[in-house]
Amino acid sequence: MSTTHYACDLLAVSEAAARIAGIVHRTPVMTSETLNSRAGRQVYLKCENLQKVGAFKYRGATNAVLKLSDADASRGVVTHSSGNHAQALALAARVRGIPAYIVMPRTAPAVKKAAVEGYGGIITECEPTLAAREEAAATLVANTGAILIPPFDHADVIAGQGTAALELLEDVPTLEAIITPVGGGGLLAGCCIAVRGIKPTIRVFGAEPLGADDAARSKAKGEWLPQTAPNTIADGLLTSTGQLTWPIIRDQVERIFTVTDDQIRSAMRFIWERMKLIVEPSGAVGVAAVLSEEFHSLANIGTIGIVLSGGNVGLEKLYW
Amino acid sequence: MSTTHYACDLLAVSEAAARIAGIVHRTPVMTSETLNSRAGRQVYLKCENLQKVGAFKYRGATNAVLKLSDADASRGVVTHSSGNHAQALALAARVRGIPAYIVMPRTAPAVKKAAVEGYGGIITECEPTLAAREEAAATLVANTGAILIPPFDHADVIAGQGTAALELLEDVPTLEAIITPVGGGGLLAGCCIAVRGIKPTIRVFGAEPLGADDAARSKAKGEWLPQTAPNTIADGLLTSTGQLTWPIIRDQVERIFTVTDDQIRSAMRFIWERMKLIVEPSGAVGVAAVLSEEFHSLANIGTIGIVLSGGNVGLEKLYW
Repeated sequence: MSTTHYACDLLAVSEAAARIAGIVHRTPVMTSETLNSRAGRQVYLKCENLQKVGAFKYRGATNAVLKLSDADASRGVVTHSSGNHAQALALAARVRGIPAYIVMPRTAPAVKKAAVEGYGGIITECEPTLAAREEAAATLVANTGAILIPPFDHADVIAGQGTAALELLEDVPTLEAIITPVGGGGLLAGCCIAVRGIKPTIRVFGAEPLGADDAARSKAKGEWLPQTAPNTIADGLLTSTGQLTWPIIRDQVERIFTVTDDQIRSAMRFIWERMKLIVEPSGAVGVAAVLSEEFHSLANIGTIGIVLSGGNVGLEKLYW
Repeated sequence: MSTTHYACDLLAVSEAAARIAGIVHRTPVMTSETLNSRAGRQVYLKCENLQKVGAFKYRGATNAVLKLSDADASRGVVTHSSGNHAQALALAARVRGIPAYIVMPRTAPAVKKAAVEGYGGIITECEPTLAAREEAAATLVANTGAILIPPFDHADVIAGQGTAALELLEDVPTLEAIITPVGGGGLLAGCCIAVRGIKPTIRVFGAEPLGADDAARSKAKGEWLPQTAPNTIADGLLTSTGQLTWPIIRDQVERIFTVTDDQIRSAMRFIWERMKLIVEPSGAVGVAAVLSEEFHSLANIGTIGIVLSGGNVGLEKLYW
């Protein structure tokens, strides 16, 4: 009998929690009686939309940046991303006082570039293809000696994201289940390791848009499948799971629920309107899943935690 | 030398806090480095927009309802309001299991009527004048024996609202000042009594829309002035201060700052966009005041608490 070695364990998450304490927000856990009643369970929302840079990504980026040796750190960090990880890494680097080189497709919205620059990130533009992004990042690494910190498939990033669930379970020890959004799987894998490490009986679920359901399909088939041609408003969840995150999701997560964009919009509006929290589409998929008919049929879950993963939306228009 | 007797003292606020504990949310206190930097001080936001019914009003309503004797309570409570107090009183009454009779002008938006009914309130419609509202409420009191709980000018309501600042100062004992919105003055008066009772050196300010600046004009003149013809997007702050709230504001509040609707919109957008919190126009006036040039000129306030008083906005359109 062999033991699978995962990229992350409870100790790594606990160490990450100690490392990032006082730098990341300990985000509040919110409840709503209306939500409880609609879900048919006690629901606890871990508000990572209220995290610095507006997303849980700041946890993993901070953990990865702080874990670097002084020598490594001094040369800076690199990533290619047009999303929340780019902002998170830029701020984490600024807090440590080191450069962050961010590769962004030249087609990325000006507001996203401005946000990265606002946190002190140094942007390198490239053509809008994965190959061009990877090449630009590799060139930066070669030229500067900076360390590549990818958005999810990295042990320290996974451990950092897991601290969200560690705090949630600390605040609500009676949780019988948790559910988080899944894109690349860093949040889901880290949270899964954290809560099952502390409470092995807890049930862990993922929530995914139907238009980017690679994790659900992978789980159903029992083997890794890539996401091709994603189509959903949940623009933080377009990517496939990774080499490090997939084994954890495969072995330790019970099930992935998929939701339509209409379900996501409806959950978002509920959270905005009733809970006064701005959550982005990707951040609302957990709530959408828990409100779905499919989820309602699950028995023996009186108390569930949901990670609201982020709140970075443009406020020029509404989603409904 | 005579002593002025105010409607509320620290003991009343402390008793209110014990009475409503576990029923009202202990709302989180949020910070933003960008806000600190723009304000030139450490700013702590007490998020009453995340309170049940979306506003601090639930504190005062709950305290007033719970303080009734069983005999009085059994006949129910009455108010005339089309705003957050109506919803707050309806829910507070439902939690105690007693009827809430809410007088609303027949012209009140359907969504506000639906909200009150959603919390179990029994609506009586009347003509949209203050005289008609007061008459309808008096008739209800006469016919049912129910107790009138006004929105602000009531000792138990003022004490209940003060619990928001009690919690804020408990969480951030280093506060050198606080500022809250002022409409009828229940929140400002209660918070003022609470924090000055604990820390007599703390400075207390009010924030008011320029289009409904009766409190600022009253303070300037040193005598109570009514608000006539208010004109502002901050629709929770249209009313004059009351007989019980005005003496506290007159004697214990240092100053009232006024802000324009443009300043309110800009503060609102900052809070939505950067802090991911939905706040209504009335709820954002404290932040608008602290970001104003006038406020910047105040010295010796390194640390200030601001009450974000509510988040009840329609989400069919944006304010900008």
